[in-house]
Amino acid sequence: MRLRSWLFQQFREVSRLFAFEEVDFPVLESEALFVRKAGEEITQQLYNFEDKGGRRVSLRPELTPSLARLVLQKGKALPLPVKWFAIGQCWRYERMTRGRRREHYQWNMDILGIPGVEAEVELLSAIVTFFKKVGISSNDVGIKISSRKVLQSLLERFEVPPGSFAAVCVVVDKVEKITRKEVEEELLKLGVLKDAADGILNALSVRSLTELEGLLGTESEAVRDLKQLFSLANGYGFADWLVFDASVVRGLAYYTGTVFEGFDKEGKLRAICGGGRYDRLLSTFGGEDTPACGFGFGDAVIVELLKDRGLLPSLQQEIDFIVFPLEEVLRPQAGLVTTKLREAGCVVELILESKKMKWAFKHAERLQAKQLVLLGSSEWERGCVRVKNLSSREEEDISIDELITKANTSKE
Amino acid sequence: MRLRSWLFQQFREVSRLFAFEEVDFPVLESEALFVRKAGEEITQQLYNFEDKGGRRVSLRPELTPSLARLVLQKGKALPLPVKWFAIGQCWRYERMTRGRRREHYQWNMDILGIPGVEAEVELLSAIVTFFKKVGISSNDVGIKISSRKVLQSLLERFEVPPGSFAAVCVVVDKVEKITRKEVEEELLKLGVLKDAADGILNALSVRSLTELEGLLGTESEAVRDLKQLFSLANGYGFADWLVFDASVVRGLAYYTGTVFEGFDKEGKLRAICGGGRYDRLLSTFGGEDTPACGFGFGDAVIVELLKDRGLLPSLQQEIDFIVFPLEEVLRPQAGLVTTKLREAGCVVELILESKKMKWAFKHAERLQAKQLVLLGSSEWERGCVRVKNLSSREEEDISIDELITKANTSKE
Repeated sequence: MRLRSWLFQQFREVSRLFAFEEVDFPVLESEALFVRKAGEEITQQLYNFEDKGGRRVSLRPELTPSLARLVLQKGKALPLPVKWFAIGQCWRYERMTRGRRREHYQWNMDILGIPGVEAEVELLSAIVTFFKKVGISSNDVGIKISSRKVLQSLLERFEVPPGSFAAVCVVVDKVEKITRKEVEEELLKLGVLKDAADGILNALSVRSLTELEGLLGTESEAVRDLKQLFSLANGYGFADWLVFDASVVRGLAYYTGTVFEGFDKEGKLRAICGGGRYDRLLSTFGGEDTPACGFGFGDAVIVELLKDRGLLPSLQQEIDFIVFPLEEVLRPQAGLVTTKLREAGCVVELILESKKMKWAFKHAERLQAKQLVLLGSSEWERGCVRVKNLSSREEEDISIDELITKANTSKE
Repeated sequence: MRLRSWLFQQFREVSRLFAFEEVDFPVLESEALFVRKAGEEITQQLYNFEDKGGRRVSLRPELTPSLARLVLQKGKALPLPVKWFAIGQCWRYERMTRGRRREHYQWNMDILGIPGVEAEVELLSAIVTFFKKVGISSNDVGIKISSRKVLQSLLERFEVPPGSFAAVCVVVDKVEKITRKEVEEELLKLGVLKDAADGILNALSVRSLTELEGLLGTESEAVRDLKQLFSLANGYGFADWLVFDASVVRGLAYYTGTVFEGFDKEGKLRAICGGGRYDRLLSTFGGEDTPACGFGFGDAVIVELLKDRGLLPSLQQEIDFIVFPLEEVLRPQAGLVTTKLREAGCVVELILESKKMKWAFKHAERLQAKQLVLLGSSEWERGCVRVKNLSSREEEDISIDELITKANTSKE
């Protein structure tokens, strides 16, 4: 939990620096919000139920559809652009394997209302800021970028009906998980001809923008967008994190433009994060098309990576004082001293049972507390307590007032 | 969401000062964890399902059973006392009314391993610390205290079989929600004789410890515990928040000793928070009995109260800089300046579209941003940007380096 809190704090801090506002959505949603026909893994693995009222509901598998609905609900009352982030738990119904749990958290950042790649660059900049903040460099991690418009151009060229676009994307995304032959078979099932399937899969091996320009022509929207994105990233100063990779498609049906995913350069882990542009998601819920892009950043793979790189912080509860009445009769006084120290902003562990002095010292050591406050009758009669500094081992008798004054000063 | 974040921050900060550690539990649990036979509202309103694997599961209605299970799982590896807090979403399947939503959040603090009322006093002290922190005084709010041992003594006196204890508590808790006659009828159904029911219900009108002592005798455990609790609270300095009230029973079946609930002194709202001692919950899950107490503090009633008292803080996103390129050609430079400001710890809203100057000023005003950074060609050629302070309306051209140095200094 300490680790999770730390990680979420980094997510929140980056989002705050980028002036994004936090939002949240229901954990249990109407199933219809997530059901799409493109054959995505995410909808096949819905953790769905029928509730007591006969409603089809689902634990959310992702946050984006709820966000899209919220934007629709707000309508004209919501000034665009919207810059929102969320940290939410998501579920899938699936066997558990390493790094694939039934529940996990996702950090999402989304920008709605900006049609240009300036929005994507802002999101990528946030991801890079996060990586730097936790000690990860561009030697460890890169972000692969492409655009669904690449695939769209190829489908047009090979005369694949545009209605199959989302389903084709979902299939092509599997190219590193299943064999090329299996991908081809799935494409044939979607009505893509053999030659077209070959042509599409070959084109996805392109790894430079120059080569892409050769393939799609200078007038290609995909090429123009990607060039602008790389040029901006260069200006911002983080182009060293980005690589163009035509094979990146992402498995979500609703992406329409730029797609990207963070990867570890050793190639040992699953994608660290992923996102893209989804300009037509709102219209699938009955709204007007609204330019939108965003990313999801899970809490599982990043922790694996930080662990591998020795970058996990050592997180210990920070305790300023342990307060310990040496005699039970001084318990009310111990409570009073404790209350005053806490009012001064100090973290105080009050010993709640009659214990031996030896136990108190061991306890203080285990918690790595800074100071131990001992209440004994002879000191108390003089208005004093004994304070032992647990790192220097020094101890002194000081008055309650002096203790509180010192505590207040230390917390200012 | 700003309000929720603020409220949770207060919950977390109080828990931290009391040296409690944060824990979390699954949102979806095995239904069996929550099914109890005492007729509690909480188990009657379970938001439960059958999952795809035929398992009976439920969205959690409360956090305590999950906490008890976690303590059992850890067994001897967990040094007692345990001081944990959690802020978790809980669900009920019920029609929605004002202040009763299907989902809400609860702040829980629990102490396991301490048999004496020192633990309850620590919890009550945390609740009082929270109230003070958000500006609520003991004129606004009180905490009613009693002990289930009062009812237990009465049941023994009237020879009610001890097996009905939990069910009797659940019925007696309804005394302010349904008529006395209805309560009596429910007690009769549980095998309590008419005279006993009368005697029990009369005893619950007791409002002073002296009177209770007269009724139960000096040797009564209930009287001894409650006297010690009030005496400690007096020593700590928060006894003015507490009132003894024999009618407080709380509706959860598992309480065994002290029970308490926070109430608004105007009597307009439902209980603000509630808790008590549950020394036998762990054994119902197959473990050894372990002394335990805790409280739940919902996020709904407290917000109503803060609203009524005008104590809701005005929460605004804090934005240090808005960065605005006056010409599109300066967008990469705007990105670079933005990145540097964020690296210095500043919150920066970067304008992502080509907009008019007038729009930028309106936007800055709406967001109450502190400063506006304008990038124009003529300034940029001299290595400068124009910075406008939005409260003083002063503006100056300064070099990028100077801007970043100033930003760094302001965030130190």
